[in-house]
Amino acid sequence: MEGVMKRWELREPGRANLKLTSVAIPTPKPGEALVRVRAVSLNYRDKLILDSTAPRASREPLVPTSDMAGEVVATGEGVTRVRKGERVLAAFSPLWVDGPPVRVDGVIPSLGGALPGVLSEYVAVPESWLVAAPRTLDDVKASTLPCAGLTAWTALMEHGAPRPGQTVVTQGTGGVSLFAVQLASALGARVIVTSGDEEKLARAKALGAAHGIHRRQTPDWEQAVLELTGGRGADVILEVVGGDNLGHSVRALASGGRIALIGVLEGFEVRFPAVPLFQTHGIIQGVMVGHRRGLEELVRAVDTLRLEPVVDATYALDAFPQALEHLDRGPFGKVVVRVGA
Amino acid sequence: MEGVMKRWELREPGRANLKLTSVAIPTPKPGEALVRVRAVSLNYRDKLILDSTAPRASREPLVPTSDMAGEVVATGEGVTRVRKGERVLAAFSPLWVDGPPVRVDGVIPSLGGALPGVLSEYVAVPESWLVAAPRTLDDVKASTLPCAGLTAWTALMEHGAPRPGQTVVTQGTGGVSLFAVQLASALGARVIVTSGDEEKLARAKALGAAHGIHRRQTPDWEQAVLELTGGRGADVILEVVGGDNLGHSVRALASGGRIALIGVLEGFEVRFPAVPLFQTHGIIQGVMVGHRRGLEELVRAVDTLRLEPVVDATYALDAFPQALEHLDRGPFGKVVVRVGA
Amino acid sequence: MEGVMKRWELREPGRANLKLTSVAIPTPKPGEALVRVRAVSLNYRDKLILDSTAPRASREPLVPTSDMAGEVVATGEGVTRVRKGERVLAAFSPLWVDGPPVRVDGVIPSLGGALPGVLSEYVAVPESWLVAAPRTLDDVKASTLPCAGLTAWTALMEHGAPRPGQTVVTQGTGGVSLFAVQLASALGARVIVTSGDEEKLARAKALGAAHGIHRRQTPDWEQAVLELTGGRGADVILEVVGGDNLGHSVRALASGGRIALIGVLEGFEVRFPAVPLFQTHGIIQGVMVGHRRGLEELVRAVDTLRLEPVVDATYALDAFPQALEHLDRGPFGKVVVRVGA
Amino acid sequence: MEGVMKRWELREPGRANLKLTSVAIPTPKPGEALVRVRAVSLNYRDKLILDSTAPRASREPLVPTSDMAGEVVATGEGVTRVRKGERVLAAFSPLWVDGPPVRVDGVIPSLGGALPGVLSEYVAVPESWLVAAPRTLDDVKASTLPCAGLTAWTALMEHGAPRPGQTVVTQGTGGVSLFAVQLASALGARVIVTSGDEEKLARAKALGAAHGIHRRQTPDWEQAVLELTGGRGADVILEVVGGDNLGHSVRALASGGRIALIGVLEGFEVRFPAVPLFQTHGIIQGVMVGHRRGLEELVRAVDTLRLEPVVDATYALDAFPQALEHLDRGPFGKVVVRVGA
Repeated sequence: MEGVMKRWELREPGRANLKLTSVAIPTPKPGEALVRVRAVSLNYRDKLILDSTAPRASREPLVPTSDMAGEVVATGEGVTRVRKGERVLAAFSPLWVDGPPVRVDGVIPSLGGALPGVLSEYVAVPESWLVAAPRTLDDVKASTLPCAGLTAWTALMEHGAPRPGQTVVTQGTGGVSLFAVQLASALGARVIVTSGDEEKLARAKALGAAHGIHRRQTPDWEQAVLELTGGRGADVILEVVGGDNLGHSVRALASGGRIALIGVLEGFEVRFPAVPLFQTHGIIQGVMVGHRRGLEELVRAVDTLRLEPVVDATYALDAFPQALEHLDRGPFGKVVVRVGA
Repeated sequence: MEGVMKRWELREPGRANLKLTSVAIPTPKPGEALVRVRAVSLNYRDKLILDSTAPRASREPLVPTSDMAGEVVATGEGVTRVRKGERVLAAFSPLWVDGPPVRVDGVIPSLGGALPGVLSEYVAVPESWLVAAPRTLDDVKASTLPCAGLTAWTALMEHGAPRPGQTVVTQGTGGVSLFAVQLASALGARVIVTSGDEEKLARAKALGAAHGIHRRQTPDWEQAVLELTGGRGADVILEVVGGDNLGHSVRALASGGRIALIGVLEGFEVRFPAVPLFQTHGIIQGVMVGHRRGLEELVRAVDTLRLEPVVDATYALDAFPQALEHLDRGPFGKVVVRVGA
Repeated sequence: MEGVMKRWELREPGRANLKLTSVAIPTPKPGEALVRVRAVSLNYRDKLILDSTAPRASREPLVPTSDMAGEVVATGEGVTRVRKGERVLAAFSPLWVDGPPVRVDGVIPSLGGALPGVLSEYVAVPESWLVAAPRTLDDVKASTLPCAGLTAWTALMEHGAPRPGQTVVTQGTGGVSLFAVQLASALGARVIVTSGDEEKLARAKALGAAHGIHRRQTPDWEQAVLELTGGRGADVILEVVGGDNLGHSVRALASGGRIALIGVLEGFEVRFPAVPLFQTHGIIQGVMVGHRRGLEELVRAVDTLRLEPVVDATYALDAFPQALEHLDRGPFGKVVVRVGA
Repeated sequence: MEGVMKRWELREPGRANLKLTSVAIPTPKPGEALVRVRAVSLNYRDKLILDSTAPRASREPLVPTSDMAGEVVATGEGVTRVRKGERVLAAFSPLWVDGPPVRVDGVIPSLGGALPGVLSEYVAVPESWLVAAPRTLDDVKASTLPCAGLTAWTALMEHGAPRPGQTVVTQGTGGVSLFAVQLASALGARVIVTSGDEEKLARAKALGAAHGIHRRQTPDWEQAVLELTGGRGADVILEVVGGDNLGHSVRALASGGRIALIGVLEGFEVRFPAVPLFQTHGIIQGVMVGHRRGLEELVRAVDTLRLEPVVDATYALDAFPQALEHLDRGPFGKVVVRVGA
């Protein structure tokens, strides 16, 4: 494959330094596949990385973003896991195949961070980084699985899934929370959503949530959860707010319940009262996206459940800065960049 | 069984109101056993209850303490689980047989709290509250199992036990921590103890700990744990300090590691940074003693391992106030009251 | 409560010795509840017990069957778990609350076996044997949960539930298998049913199964499972046939898959080739109905999922022998006896 | 690295066709390490492969055996997981990193089978196949970990480890069984060994077993297990005999117990009665060695426990046929071939 391709790069810290450049299309080495990128889904984390003012350690440009769907257009020597023409996703933390997290210097290496990003017309990556795309989704929707989808999947499924008849609480209406609404209600769980926006609560109910709690009207929202569950509390809670909100989540927990701590929009330092966690033998588990086996299972689940990820808007590759601004405003679901014709 | 017996009672809040009284020996009702109490082990929680200034809800006197070893001397109609002459322990939370905690009004009912206490020459209790005592321990040592022993057991075993070669961190040298040192080292785990007292560290090492960290000399003790484990961190941590210490524990955690939150000596409100919990997919689990099945397993384990609980001192029944003062000073292991001849 | 009531009794081995008798309505003792039985669901096991020619050990008459739905009409002293007027189910193995099976002389005591049966207008039972009935089902349908429903629930849920996108195989169209079809498809699993009857396959598909395999037309049915799953195999298989069929199940298993061995219609001695179990690290687990906590969870699940158990026919109390004959013919789903007006 | 090396090869089926040849020392490709083999441990499986009369599919010679300890002497481009001079083991099924088995055409690819063997002075293998050797063992003992050691580890640890006070049954005194005796007793479990040889029982007890049962004197050996456990039965059983013996194992099981099916010396077709598995909710799990993460954990456990594998005899590389004959006679523990000076 010869020729040039477009990609977004950052050489100096700060979003203002983003540049759309032209570089040579890479050639896949032994064990690598060349993928024609079709869609790239954005995450809150991409904003944090682009807006960081810390000096960059590497002299290589940062190619941002982690989540892509595309098509294999060429393969290097010895590749057996994928073949030309196959639709694929890239795993978010591709060195972590299964089991407990595989870390390097205390951090799970991920695309668009310690590993190269995907906001490019083509990427050449080791074949072991790729997973077959879902048959039932187009590239735009498929591109939302590797980070937002897998985070919801891991939080719900990888440490004892909620059972039919159990209660799941999700917070807000970002991409992870909406995936969780769809997945948990498909499992037969009763889903309660918290949000500060009446209209978004209504849209979350349309996706399968049984109840909505307006966070500003009911700041002690755990009381509403206890009432809705006859005093039992919630069996699984996806905590995305952090800070003091974790204390509310702990007080909302059922006996034997579990909190998946996945986001900290209101504070990286989290706080909670110990006694309710004692009396429930409750669990708080940190969740950082998930492993490749989880992504493979999620793809099968999406195909079987015919689950349709919620995409709020799509943008052309040139319009990546506008897509980021949409992210700043707090979308309902995902913002996706279309790449190529 | 006729006659009178001694027991400690509290009718008004505050330790000063404790009284040693004489009351009739109870007669076991259908389904109950009458137990001649031989030894009662004290817990930090007994101090909290006795020192509380909150007005008491019940008009019945409070009989303090939860942990006893004794002998069945009579049985009511229909009793099949125990027989006369059998040595027994009482379960701490006797309504909780197995599985997730059984709560009433949000609290796990326990002896010496929502349920009657055992600081009495005799107690009549439902047969289902009793468990066979270990063959290899005398009554004084056996009495330490229901709360301190079971808490360590639950923290170590009931949510994925540490494996040989893994690292367990215990904090301080109270009863629970010393049980954990003995149990975890018997499992083949490498145990690291933290304490603010050099001599106590030495004694903990004599019980099986591989390493000691002086908490005051090394306030950021997680760095020492990371060094001792070649950067891997600890697989299981028994958190008894609470408050800000939980943050150190979270930073000391290995990938896939787990913190059992069992005590909060320095603060019921606990705090930690979210990022290290994300990067390890670490777990924080609240632990409140444990269920009856756990106590039955612990008894078998103690008999097989020939584990000898650490008793710092014993007191006569009359000297219960002096035993409490010993507890105030922070014992090394357990303080036990001998009951009867 | 005074007066007489009807109940079925067996004093000598053999179904021909069944008698409908009149006895005094019992008075609930302390800790007991008197239940007005409304519906009794029959199980294959009831046939085995009634048709056994072994001499009976007890001189008390056998009251057959285990599964009832009814209403509490009186309570004995000290009862707090249920109240008058409450609709209830009896747990199949009521001494087994949670955790591993509670056995007496190597057997899990169950109603209509080692414990009294329920084919009676009233039963007086310990309050701990009762569980709240589902709100969304009438008594006839509710009566099918304690044995057939709970067996399917335990097999699917209590040892790692199937995930959305995974494949579940159920065998035949008896009560347990049809519950499993309904539950597993509600969980997002893909369900494959095997049966020797084309029409029953069609009816199972109407309940949620994705595929049917005709067992006589495809004796090596595991090949069809492998084809339908792209060579992956089934993640969970409910084995009800036994004998040589277990070998087919083992060969149909996916990597990491699990067989719940719940029935042995074609042989109590089961056989399988070891190598496919090695290569999948597959699991075979014996399932004998389940514990009381499972029944409580199933009730919540049924109410949330609005799951409607399949009842093939109902009979009046007098017509119990005809109901047994229906069972002999192999019903599609459950056969239920209505008790009382 | 230039020059020639010796290695054993088989070009036609049958042990008689084994030849010690001289071939060029391989050069490590990108991502590969060249390992100087120091010791190779033999397994019963090697005999099965060498004695098979089935025509060979591949035209490449078979290099037999799977388990080696050695030293990295050179690394190819891009290797980061190991470095020159490091002592290493090769994983038995090196493509299976963690989680459920990774299969190709229904089989877990393993060294000396679908993947190349190690009975050679040097091997060049992908770096991902290698694991750091234990610090506390020499090469001969270390070479016994990848198959026999890991099989015992997987059987004991990867599906709920035995707890202190629980009972483990191991069968015979081959390499896997003796590892299990050592590991399980180090975990605080009570180990019962069955064997047909009084002297071997005595030696197994010297390694940590609490009891021995002579299989020929007590063919219904499950009765002895039940007596030794006060009727409870065994919590974990390592089944290596297969055939009808599985039925004895099932009858020896405790409530909630587990059988790891790891060998089938007396029959690949296994049989058992279903009822005792129903009444215990017991589990039978197929075990085929294990994954790379398990081997990494085993190495740490061996170093912490100072566990010394039992080696019955060592042979020089030239004497491989004699080592196989030793294997034919049934060693006590492992037979190892020393490679190089």
